[in-house]
Amino acid sequence: MKTFLSLLLLTLGTATNAEEIRATGDLGLVVERARGSLLVIDQSDRAAIGRIDGLGDLSHASLVYSPDERFAYVFGRDGGLSKVDIVEGKVSARVLQAGNSIGGAISDDGSLVAVSNYEPGGVRVFNADTLEMLADIPTASKTIGLVDAPGRRFVFTTWDDGETWIADFSKSGAPEITTIPEMGANPYDALITGDGRTYITGLFGEDGLTALDLWNEAPQPIRILQGYGRGKEDLPVYKMPHLEGWAKAGDEFVLPAVGHHEVLWIDAATLAETGRTDTYGQPVFAMARPDGRHVWVNFAHPLNDTIQVIDTMTKEVIHEFKPGPAVLHMEFTPRGHEVWISVRDAGKVMIYDTQSFEKLREIEADSPSGIFFTARAHRTGL
Amino acid sequence: MKTFLSLLLLTLGTATNAEEIRATGDLGLVVERARGSLLVIDQSDRAAIGRIDGLGDLSHASLVYSPDERFAYVFGRDGGLSKVDIVEGKVSARVLQAGNSIGGAISDDGSLVAVSNYEPGGVRVFNADTLEMLADIPTASKTIGLVDAPGRRFVFTTWDDGETWIADFSKSGAPEITTIPEMGANPYDALITGDGRTYITGLFGEDGLTALDLWNEAPQPIRILQGYGRGKEDLPVYKMPHLEGWAKAGDEFVLPAVGHHEVLWIDAATLAETGRTDTYGQPVFAMARPDGRHVWVNFAHPLNDTIQVIDTMTKEVIHEFKPGPAVLHMEFTPRGHEVWISVRDAGKVMIYDTQSFEKLREIEADSPSGIFFTARAHRTGL
Repeated sequence: MKTFLSLLLLTLGTATNAEEIRATGDLGLVVERARGSLLVIDQSDRAAIGRIDGLGDLSHASLVYSPDERFAYVFGRDGGLSKVDIVEGKVSARVLQAGNSIGGAISDDGSLVAVSNYEPGGVRVFNADTLEMLADIPTASKTIGLVDAPGRRFVFTTWDDGETWIADFSKSGAPEITTIPEMGANPYDALITGDGRTYITGLFGEDGLTALDLWNEAPQPIRILQGYGRGKEDLPVYKMPHLEGWAKAGDEFVLPAVGHHEVLWIDAATLAETGRTDTYGQPVFAMARPDGRHVWVNFAHPLNDTIQVIDTMTKEVIHEFKPGPAVLHMEFTPRGHEVWISVRDAGKVMIYDTQSFEKLREIEADSPSGIFFTARAHRTGL
Repeated sequence: MKTFLSLLLLTLGTATNAEEIRATGDLGLVVERARGSLLVIDQSDRAAIGRIDGLGDLSHASLVYSPDERFAYVFGRDGGLSKVDIVEGKVSARVLQAGNSIGGAISDDGSLVAVSNYEPGGVRVFNADTLEMLADIPTASKTIGLVDAPGRRFVFTTWDDGETWIADFSKSGAPEITTIPEMGANPYDALITGDGRTYITGLFGEDGLTALDLWNEAPQPIRILQGYGRGKEDLPVYKMPHLEGWAKAGDEFVLPAVGHHEVLWIDAATLAETGRTDTYGQPVFAMARPDGRHVWVNFAHPLNDTIQVIDTMTKEVIHEFKPGPAVLHMEFTPRGHEVWISVRDAGKVMIYDTQSFEKLREIEADSPSGIFFTARAHRTGL
């Protein structure tokens, strides 16, 4: 009888999760920064379906997804690396891997999770299943702009000495490291293009950016947008724009200008500037709708209540609206029909139709910041 | 007691599905053409995890996925439209919607499924939840090249009179139809680029292809690759190449030439020819690895035992191998670290590492043809 009851309890326990089968392709997580929690969202239902607590300091937190879109790896500011099970709605593993960390990445095969650290510097690489540390790559500097690249590689850059490192884990054993010096003064962030070919760093210490062609056998720094105005700004820089916000729109990239009320357009093939668009404030994210036809821009404090939408063909602002106080992040549904927007001080995530600009729904959230749909699992460099 | 037992049975019944939670982001389906079934595959486990029978005639079958990556909509040659639940492993709905059909598409919001028909011609559009028919768009011709475009639109082309139709479902009620004549003689297939901007039809009746820029307010036919050799072929055409196989590789598209042992390269911005690469046979699919660095090509009967891999930078063949008899289809994992290959007459799906070209695993399958990973749910035009 005891066996029967145990079995029954076990069965009932399991059944609780099963009552509602939930496929994971349309789920997502919203970072609730103040509370240290993640809100689980369902894109198709336009609803929050759960909350996961206990994630430590989530200021500037970001996350990546496992290939099956079941687990998220959350990179907290406090050096915490948490593995979250979005199906069961719980933290399934957590390690405090450094004193102060700033983002991470997952390898193309989903087996390795890398974390970029400020304190100490360097990058640490973990087994995605167990969070066991597999490699420790010390640097003499804080590291920034850590991304995944095809072929089980991670790419990152050092703030103090301006070097980009490529760590190749394609062979078993210790990673093969390639170091590219002279990337420029104080790189503060970087991105990799969706095809994993071009790595671009933004520079804090000089007026321009630096690109690398990773298809090249021995990639060399390529200076781009030199003297675009970063050094001449007459406005204080309220917030360094996120380079993740760089986006491919048609044959161009769109880039938030540092310290100016404008976005820059550059030719995707030549990386030469092709135009500028005046904006309402200092842009933080300039994000292309997945089809590239429109670019949505949010702004730094104190103008962070507003969004502008720019048409890629004309480079003109075609729509402007005020979702509310402290618009922190935007995430498009993977095929671009909706955009989800974090409005921190309204305590809401707002959902808009990207064709009609109509507001479709509001979801309650506790000081929401980053929004991450599981579709990111299938993309390079996100 | 009866209530208790019912509850217990219900619980046990539910628990069977729950024992193993399966996230859906890394699943896929392989068409088993002869048997009329689908093999359910797990990309991370490199394994088959189930089979779904009862799908009718699956010759030339294709399928699309719901946004949550739980359901597949299968378009059979016999006019059958089946909704398959890959979590529960069953056909959850099926309608025989026409006498002879040739592919379909799902709208960007996941609410509409469209099917392209030969017999009768035209396109029919169904509610993705219920498979209830919502719109019947008759044409005077067989329809080909049906794709989804951003903004709840479907685009397709008529074989007999060479017209492209755009059906816009963004407003409630009947779709708004735009018709673009003079696309050329006997379009046999079409594709839409990943950003949903450019629609390109292959022509059977003349030597060239026709493109449309869907960002244009009133798209006009643009003739490309005119006189590239389609009319001069000295080889019989064993199989018309699939245009779905067109792929963006860097700044170029790669295209299987009709009736020749070569692939063509065209500039993605200007659509002008930029080069040709000689191949082992008449290419059927020329598919770019997701990062665009390599293009994998398979060939028409009787040379269909071989695959060649072309480097995008040099346009040269860098690898050639023979997986086995009747290589019908290839599908890359979404971030490109592996490729899965259907080798029909070997009764196997073979899995290769795309960096080392090493064979990683073989999976038994009954005359496998098309392979479709759920990651397609998040892409336009697949």
